[in-house]
This record gives sequence, C-alpha cells and structure tokens, in this order.
Amino acid sequence: MTTRTALLAAASLAAIPLLAAPAAADEGMWTFDGFPAEKVRKAYGWAPDQAWLDRVRNSSVRLTGGCSASFVSPEGLILTNHHCIASCLYDNSTDAKDYLADGFTARRREDELTCPGQQAEVVTAIADVTGDVMGAIGDLSGEALTKARDAKIAEIESAGCPDTETTRCQVVTLFGGGQYKLYTYRKYSDVRLAWAPEARAATFGGDPDNFNFPRYSLDASFLRAYEDGRPVSTPAHLQWNPRAPEEGEITFVVGNPGSTSRLFTQSQLAFEREVRLPLTLATLSELRGRLIRAMDESPEHAREGQDLLFGVENSLKVYIGRTKALNDPAFTARLAAAEADLKAKSAGNGEIGDPWSAVEEAVDAYRALYLPLRFTQPSGDLYGYAQTLVFAAQERAKPNAERLPGYTDSALPLTEKRLLDERPVYPWVDELTMEWSLSKAREYLGVDDPDSQLLLGKESPEQRAERLVNGTKLADPAVRKALWDGGLEAIEASDDPMIRYALALAPRQRELKALADAQYSGPLAAAGAKLADARFAAYGDALYPDATFTLRISYGQVKGWTERGKDVPIRTTLGGTFERATGNPPFDLPPAFAANEARIDKDTTYDFVTTNDIIGGNSGSPVIDRAGTVIGTAFDGNIHSLGGNYGYDGTLNRTVAVSTAAVQEALETIYPAPALVAELAGE
Amino acid sequence: MTTRTALLAAASLAAIPLLAAPAAADEGMWTFDGFPAEKVRKAYGWAPDQAWLDRVRNSSVRLTGGCSASFVSPEGLILTNHHCIASCLYDNSTDAKDYLADGFTARRREDELTCPGQQAEVVTAIADVTGDVMGAIGDLSGEALTKARDAKIAEIESAGCPDTETTRCQVVTLFGGGQYKLYTYRKYSDVRLAWAPEARAATFGGDPDNFNFPRYSLDASFLRAYEDGRPVSTPAHLQWNPRAPEEGEITFVVGNPGSTSRLFTQSQLAFEREVRLPLTLATLSELRGRLIRAMDESPEHAREGQDLLFGVENSLKVYIGRTKALNDPAFTARLAAAEADLKAKSAGNGEIGDPWSAVEEAVDAYRALYLPLRFTQPSGDLYGYAQTLVFAAQERAKPNAERLPGYTDSALPLTEKRLLDERPVYPWVDELTMEWSLSKAREYLGVDDPDSQLLLGKESPEQRAERLVNGTKLADPAVRKALWDGGLEAIEASDDPMIRYALALAPRQRELKALADAQYSGPLAAAGAKLADARFAAYGDALYPDATFTLRISYGQVKGWTERGKDVPIRTTLGGTFERATGNPPFDLPPAFAANEARIDKDTTYDFVTTNDIIGGNSGSPVIDRAGTVIGTAFDGNIHSLGGNYGYDGTLNRTVAVSTAAVQEALETIYPAPALVAELAGE
Repeated sequence: MTTRTALLAAASLAAIPLLAAPAAADEGMWTFDGFPAEKVRKAYGWAPDQAWLDRVRNSSVRLTGGCSASFVSPEGLILTNHHCIASCLYDNSTDAKDYLADGFTARRREDELTCPGQQAEVVTAIADVTGDVMGAIGDLSGEALTKARDAKIAEIESAGCPDTETTRCQVVTLFGGGQYKLYTYRKYSDVRLAWAPEARAATFGGDPDNFNFPRYSLDASFLRAYEDGRPVSTPAHLQWNPRAPEEGEITFVVGNPGSTSRLFTQSQLAFEREVRLPLTLATLSELRGRLIRAMDESPEHAREGQDLLFGVENSLKVYIGRTKALNDPAFTARLAAAEADLKAKSAGNGEIGDPWSAVEEAVDAYRALYLPLRFTQPSGDLYGYAQTLVFAAQERAKPNAERLPGYTDSALPLTEKRLLDERPVYPWVDELTMEWSLSKAREYLGVDDPDSQLLLGKESPEQRAERLVNGTKLADPAVRKALWDGGLEAIEASDDPMIRYALALAPRQRELKALADAQYSGPLAAAGAKLADARFAAYGDALYPDATFTLRISYGQVKGWTERGKDVPIRTTLGGTFERATGNPPFDLPPAFAANEARIDKDTTYDFVTTNDIIGGNSGSPVIDRAGTVIGTAFDGNIHSLGGNYGYDGTLNRTVAVSTAAVQEALETIYPAPALVAELAGE
Repeated sequence: MTTRTALLAAASLAAIPLLAAPAAADEGMWTFDGFPAEKVRKAYGWAPDQAWLDRVRNSSVRLTGGCSASFVSPEGLILTNHHCIASCLYDNSTDAKDYLADGFTARRREDELTCPGQQAEVVTAIADVTGDVMGAIGDLSGEALTKARDAKIAEIESAGCPDTETTRCQVVTLFGGGQYKLYTYRKYSDVRLAWAPEARAATFGGDPDNFNFPRYSLDASFLRAYEDGRPVSTPAHLQWNPRAPEEGEITFVVGNPGSTSRLFTQSQLAFEREVRLPLTLATLSELRGRLIRAMDESPEHAREGQDLLFGVENSLKVYIGRTKALNDPAFTARLAAAEADLKAKSAGNGEIGDPWSAVEEAVDAYRALYLPLRFTQPSGDLYGYAQTLVFAAQERAKPNAERLPGYTDSALPLTEKRLLDERPVYPWVDELTMEWSLSKAREYLGVDDPDSQLLLGKESPEQRAERLVNGTKLADPAVRKALWDGGLEAIEASDDPMIRYALALAPRQRELKALADAQYSGPLAAAGAKLADARFAAYGDALYPDATFTLRISYGQVKGWTERGKDVPIRTTLGGTFERATGNPPFDLPPAFAANEARIDKDTTYDFVTTNDIIGGNSGSPVIDRAGTVIGTAFDGNIHSLGGNYGYDGTLNRTVAVSTAAVQEALETIYPAPALVAELAGE
C-alpha cells in the first residue's frame, strides 16, 4: 500500500494546472494528475489537498462491466449501482429463482454470488508516456501510424505489468492523441455480489423515469472483491456516511466517465448529426420493438429479455438526447463559436497548421466506410464469442507488438475472462438480435452489396440467424475453453457453424479496419495531436481531456435547477415513492416497500441532484463530501445532461444520486442486512 | 409507395406547402389547367394538345384509399397497382382463404370482390374560387382566418355538388394559400376487384427492394367501378397498349401525388430535420419491430399483420430517405439558395413584406404544440372509429359552415363510407398499435405531463390498450351504424369504453387544434399567400404548386441513370426474376412463376424507369405515351426520389413502372384471365 501511494503521489505532483481554462463553473471530468484545485478554491472557498485526493483515488474502483464504484469497508466491500450489477443477478437467475426480481442479501460471506465477467480495478500509478509513443509515431501517417502506435503501446503495457495475474496496464490516449498515459491497476478478477434490493426498487419508474428527476430509485448495491477465495483487504476505502445532503454543499464525484465528444470538430459533429445518430435511432428502436413484443410472449421471455432491453432503452434515450442537443441551434452555435475561437487563436501558428481540414477529410473518408464497418459485425453473444475466439487464435499466433489492440498480452486476460466465465445464453435472445442486425445490414448496405452477400449468402436474415444460433455449441463454456486452448488449429478445424461464420467474416473485418486506420484513425490521431497543441497554446494546459473510461474527478454542489419556470428541488424522500406509485408497472411499489411501509422513515432523503459533470461509465461513482466521506452513489444524469456528450451546461445539467441515508434505511428496514450495517459502521 | 401510411403519421397536422421556384427539366407535378406545353415542346419537339389532355384527364381516376388509376376499357375497368388494392384482398381474406397470398381472378363479373372503403373519382371540372375564398378571409388572421376560410369552403363545396350521391366537390388550397380551386368529381363508391396476382409477384424483393431498381415486381391489378350493381360505362378510357417502352421516348404520368414540401421555407425545413423526422424515425421503427416480432408468433399473425407492416415499412423508408436528403449538405444548399434567390428578387416589394419571418414565427409556435398535437391521437382502427363517431356526432349538430373540415356536408359521405364499410378488425393488431402509441406518448410528453395523464390516468399503456380494445364493440359495423344513426344522443349515452375514451380526449384535441389554427395554420395561410405573390412576381405564373392529392400531369422520358459510376439500364425482364430468386423470402419465386417458368416469355419487359416527377399518391398512375395509350403503371420511385419531397433532381430521381407488356404476359400465361385480355383488346 505504501509503495502504491508513493507512486501515485509522485504522478500527481507532476501537473500544476493553475491557469484559467475555458471550462465553465463546475464543468470538467478532471484527471487526478490535473485536478484544478485553484479553480475549485475560488468557486467554493476550499479545495481538497493532495492527501485527500490520494485517499479518494485509492478507494475508487473501476468495474470492467462499464461502471464505477468505491471501497467502503476494509474488507473489500464495494458500493456501486444496482444497474451495474443487474447482469450479475440476471446471470445467476433461473426460471426457478429470479434474483433480479427478488433482490439478494447474502446471509453469510460464502453465500455471496459470483459475477461473471466482472473485474474490479484500482489505479495505482499514472505515468506520462507521451514521449515514447510520439517517438514511435515520428512522421508516420495513416495505417503505418496506427501500427507503430499500437505496437509501442503493447510494448509499454507489457513492460509495465509483467504480473498480469494481479495487475493490468493500459495506455490511454488523451486529448485525441495529444497525450498518452500509462495507467497501472491493481485488479481483482473475482467479484461477488453481497446485497441488492428488488429490481423494482432500483428501476421504479422504469424507462419513463430514466434520466428524469424527481426520482425515486434505490439504484445501489454492494459487491465484494475476492482473491484466493478470500475477501481482499482494503485499508484504503471511503468512510460510509449515511446522512442527507445539504443544499449548496460541495460534492465530488469520482469515477470513470466512459466517453465524451466535447473536443469534436464541426465536421465530426456533422457526421454525428447527419449519419450516425439517425441511423442509430432507427435501428435501435426497431430492436427495442422486437424485444418488447418478444418479452410479452411468456414470463420466461420477460425475464430473459430484460437485461438486453434495459441496455437498449437506456442507450436509445442517450441517443435521442444527443439528437436533440445537436438539433438545438442555440447549443450547436456555442460549439461552433468554441471552434471559431480556437481557430482564431491558432491563426498564424505554423506549428499547428490546419488540423480541422485534416479531420474533415478523415471524416469524409469515414462516411464511405461507415456502413460496411458498422454492419459487418453481427450482433449476439454467441457470434461475439465466435469472433473473439477466431481473432484471439489468429492474433495470438503473432508477436505481441503486431496484434490488434484487444489481443495484446496486456489485454488478453480480461478478454479470456469474459469469454470463459460461465453465464447463461438464451438462444431466442441471440437469434432475435442476430436476425435484427443481419436484416438491418441488408437494409442499409442494400441487397446487392458484396458485404450483404458475404453476411447472408442466399439465406434470409431469419434463416441464417436461426441456423447459426441453433447449430452452435458455443453457449457451453467448456466448448469455448477447448477452442481457446486449442488455438488456431482448433479454430480452423472446427465445424461449429458460428466459428465458420466468424472465420468467413474475419478477412473483410480486417480489411475494413485497415482502411479505417489508413483513412480515418491514423489521420485523426495526427490531427488530434495538433488540435491538442492548439488548445494548450490557446488556453494553457489547465484543461480536461474527453472521457476515456479512466479515473476522473468532478466537483460541484448539491443544487436543483429551473424547469420551464418551475424550481426542481434538490431531493426526494422515500415517502414520495408511495405517492408516485400507481400500482401499475413500472410505477408499482416494490413488494418490500409495500410490506414495510409502516416502518420506513418516509422523510429519509432518497435521491438528490448535484451539478457534477458526469456521463455514462460514472454510474456507481461515490458522491463524496468535503470530509472525504461517501454520501451517495451517482446513478444517472437528468434529461439535460444527455447533451453533455458534446458540452456541459451548468444551469441545467445535473447528476442524480442515491443518498447513503436511503441505502442505510434500506439495509436496516426494507432489505435487512445487519452484517453489512455493522461492516459499514466499522463495527 | 402509398399514402395509406400517411394515416399513421396523421397525428401531425399536414403542414401547408408554400410555393416553387422555376422548374428544372422534367420537373413538375402540373395541374391540368397549367400544363407547360411550350416547355415540353422545347424539350421534346412535341407537346400534347388540349384534346389529348382532355381525353387523358377524363380517363384518370383517383382512388380514395390514397392511390391513382385509370379506366382502360369502356366497362369501368380500372388499372392500378397491386399495393393499392392489397387492403381489399386483405379485408376479404380469412384464415381459410388468403386472397393476398394466392391472388385473385374473377371468373365472372359477379365474382368480383367488393373493396371496403374504396371509392373511385374522376375530375369533371376545375374552377378558380380564389376570389371567393380570399374575399371571405379579408384581413382576418389566426383562428378567425381559418374559420372564415373553412366556412367559405364548406359553402362552395355544398353549392357545387348538391347531389352527393354521384358527385363530390373539393376546394383545394394551392401554393400554400395563393390559389383556391374547386374540383368537381364524378364519384363511384362501389369499387370491386377483378384481378390481382399473387402478393409475392407484386412484392418480390419485399422491403429490401422497395424504392430500388433494377426491380422485378408485378405491382399491377384491375378494379372495376360499379353503380346500381352494374359496371359503369366509361367511354372515356385509355387504350391498353401492351408494348415495351423505348429508351428516350416521351412519357406522361397522370395521377394524384399526395403531398410535397418543395416550397417549404428554411424554418420549415429545419423543423422537419430537427424535430419531426428524428422523432418519426424512432417511433415508427419501434412499431415496426413490435409488428415484425408479433407476426413471427403464428401464421395467423403473419397474415393479419402484413397490411400494417407494409405501410409502416414503406413510410419508414420514405422518412429515412427524407432524413438523408435533409442531412445532405449539397442538397440543402440548393434549397437555401432557392430561398435566397426569391428573397433577393422580392426585396423592396412592399406588397410582399417578410413572409419568411412570419413562417418562422408560426413554426416556432408549432414546435411547442407539436408533441401534444401528435401524441393526443392514439393509434388503432378501433380508436379511429370511435373518434370519427364522436366528432361526427358533435359536428353534425352544428351548421355546415361551422364544422371541422372532415365533417362538412361535402366530406361526410366518404367519412361515413369509411366508417361503415365492413372490414375485419384484428384485436391484437389494434392493441399492439394502441399500446405502442400510448407508450410513445408517455415517453415523449413525460410521465407527469397533463396530456400523458389524460391519455393514461393511472393505467399503463399496456393496460389501457388492452381494456379498451377488449371492451369495445366497435369492430361490429352494425354497432357503428347504430351509433352513427343515433347521433350525439347515442354517443353520449354509450358505455362503450372506446367511445368514452374518444369523448374524454375530444375537448383537448379541439383545444389543440384551435391553438394550432391560431398560432400556426392561420399565420401560415396568410404568409403562404404572400409567398405565392412573391413567386409569381419573381418567376411568372408558369409554376406548379406543391402536391395536394389532386390530379396532376408530369412529363419525362424513359431513361436510366448512373449509380456510383455504373449505368442503370431502363428496364428489367420477366426472366430476371428467376435469376434474382434465392428461394428465400422475400426473394422466393411466386408459385405461379415457378409453375409456368417454361411458358413465360422471359424477354418480356417487366419494370422500367422514367424521369417523370412523382411522389406517394401517384401509385397506380398510368404511364402514357405520345399516342395517349397506356404502356405502364407507375408504382414506385427509385431511392433518390425520396428527396423529391423537398426537391427534384433530374439526374437521379426516377419513376418505376410495371410495363403493360408484363401485365399482358401475366394475364395470358401466369394468372390467366382470358376475359380481361379480350376486354383490354377491345374485343
């Protein structure tokens, strides 16, 4: 622990971001080595010191399922959102036992449920490797650039983490190619579920209330990290503080925002608005419709389809929000003005040149590649397994530096875990998604397109999906294990129809990736470095990079907002749930709420809002107060925050969190877990 | 390509089209009283004379289902598309007898199948009533304007057609309010089906090939108009000419294009791109997905859902095409330039003022009304019946001049026919569409919105749809007839839950209509008149108005186009079908094609393309040669033609037609109908 802390402290001291940045009040998903302490002090009269930051960082957890979390006890207990572990409940459920509907409380440690594919990771060091990577890139361009860059990254990652059992190294590209940083993680690949409420308590209001506030959601759960069959010792953890938030108090949200596009140029934004978003809206909505109807067909379908439906509806709401943002002339005018300002400030700087035109050229090339790139990747877990097996076998046969990014020595352990962990596959769900994706491929590529014909041959989407899903044995982890262990020889000898399909598609997928590297990713990386230079020259280096699913800290305060002239208050109470309930899904009371109504303290703060700047991936992040204690877990943004992918608006964008006070009440009264209550209290 | 699907988007107010810039070569959907003979003569060295035009006009038929057609024998025989009569086959089918799948040939006249809701109409006179309507409008604005206008129109229509049994009068608004014309029709409300091929012959390639070419579709059928139980005598008809088209020959397409938006101002286009289209794409795609899955559940569902699915997929392709067009910077730049040109030419003309700003203001108001207007109209045939019954009862109690447009004396006969004609209702289809529309209402309006609460109360969309659809008796035509005849008293006394629901929604629907009239339609009508003046002043009066589902004539030629550097030929052959067939839907051979392969003349021209400027509603239009004989029936546009809603591009936009040669071959060899062959030959 001491060594790790020292490394982190050294890395943090490196950056001294004191200059004024174009970030608005409370805006920013700041890296820990670039925390804007002065800015925070100016706004709030106080800012955390390095010790505070280090403690918080050491307590923060990334969940490889795509979420954030934090240690909240010395025995590896992890606080996160319910929706971050819903897949774990889903994967452990059967027709006989529906953990998702019923919730789960481990009576004893040994009852805690293993979560397939889940891994917890804690940053232990951040090192700047920009010079190394830039040196490898040199004057290269196009595909040569991406190859040299990826080889150097593979080399750095391997050298940094010789022990891939307990550590993971990841080189992260920041500022679109302006910086490269090596993040070292302590990893815990055995993650188990300790406590979760009934799904309805977390999803009360369902899709209609998702991304909305006032909200009545117990979107919280507890995991525990294990190693060698025992809970890990986590002396670095946040103190549990089950109190209500106070209006105006400063709050920090620490987690891993997945991705933002705030540094997109106008041509990149145009591509989003003109091509990607309309296509995504139409295709994903159709998938939603197919699923909704299929889930109506039987109680089994209803249960088995819900994990996918939640994901689809959540994504769709995000894309609809982005569409609205990019079709809001006032919003886009601000983005255009920001670009114009940077261009003006960069004018005459020969070092920078015209990266905007380079980006536009790359985007134009990407427009031509977009449909084949998107649609030559059929959907479905089973196809995903086959594709991973095929690519892993082919890539593992190459030297580390020549492999595709997902298959380097540093990336393989998680790839392997995800592939081999046992989890249920529901053939009808796979068939539905595969049929959908193949039919959309044919629709958008056209019947006579060679890629359509590669995907379908003479079959219809329905026939091909049915034949492959019914014919494959890849739902069996033992079969996957044998093919993984057997390597390229086993793969090439396999007569599994899904493996044959993945083998047949792979050459074209590789060809398209090479084209995209040459015409799009390579040029973008080069232009990205220039744009980063332009920004640093214009605004200094007190900037935050676009989100990259790496650890960030955002500061803000507990604060409502004004909606169509009406003030939205900062909080809801547990009692409000009973008023909002209609008796009908998704506004039906969770059974345990109904059963315990008389005992629940209805004045308990339930959910609350802050001005923190977050985005998808931040789910499960601790909301931390000035004292460094955890007072909530962020689980959502309000509807306005959806434009946050492109830009933050402090007057409207809000983080939505579950209060620790509500979680405490749930642990005591609604879904009793006395052992956890004691553990959280440090008893 | 059908306007049937306009019904699906019926919740939106039809935006009032404005006015066109000078037409490019072959561009234009010309009114018969504004045919540009000189322009045609200049381009093609020949133009039809008045006698030619009169003959063609007298032979042209409008089908109230949303299509076009023509008389092709002296005994009321009507040529149109298969997809224009598919609903007739569908409505006549049962689980025991699937006319749609099998096709239909009437052995004897008395076997011809009645088509519910269908009516054939022939224009007999066009009179300019602009002065009358403008006089009534005077200096009024807002809702007062729309009320005065609609009252005058009701008066003119009633006066023009005292005999509503055999005639129909309709005042049409052209140039967005620049002109008002009274169209008088001879109507035939008994329309029967004489011949239709198997559905697969018409829909070969299905949705994937829809709006594409090369194409292999027998999208043709024959109806017959009846009166007093006998075929009507139609001395005015087109001569059947079963020959192949020749490259470059001049062609005319005569029919009823449904609606275009070519005269939209920039602010109207922005509304389309920013609001209406993204929302429509997402919601309609979800409906598509729900239906696709539901139709997979049983053969009955597959049959019963197909009419709606065809409409949904057809509309969706249209909206996707429009989205592409409005997101194509080159395309929109042309539209912007056209507006800039008109503004420049109008500068300083005090008579015109600034109608563009007036339109923008109206559109801004409409943005605020759009969601409630759209979503307070639940979908479903049964709700549609209830709404018609409620509004008709309430409106019929008022003097003619004070009624809503769909319920004036001149409009009521068709409204009544559509309501009372017997046709099957499939409760699951109604429940699916109603549930979908209510859940989208809640999603877009928000759970706490008063309109959401009006629509749902405490129920979920699923519950409300199920309760209303299962509880109503409106599927029974006798029940509808009793409520229609019983008038307001019967309606108000009814305990039918769908009637109660329609009664509960009606006040809010009326309120929203009044708001839209005051803030949007009224201002738009006033601005439309000014914009029309501006266009006439700038470009003269040789202009064509936006489409209004009234009779138009377009000229052009048989011509291919160049697609990604490749020449697309003008025609396909019947033999090509056999090459394209994969054996799998929707590329499976129609059984009669397979059975008769050896006897079919494979060199017969099947489908062909022309440069004629058409749009949805033109489906079924005759393609007429210089001699005035019919050589095809237009059934589609190519994919580029979808942008034709906003502007015509002669290099790319194409009409797709079935050749009469192919229809003749089908009548002789594939779906033999010797009596029709003789009738068409004038024997």
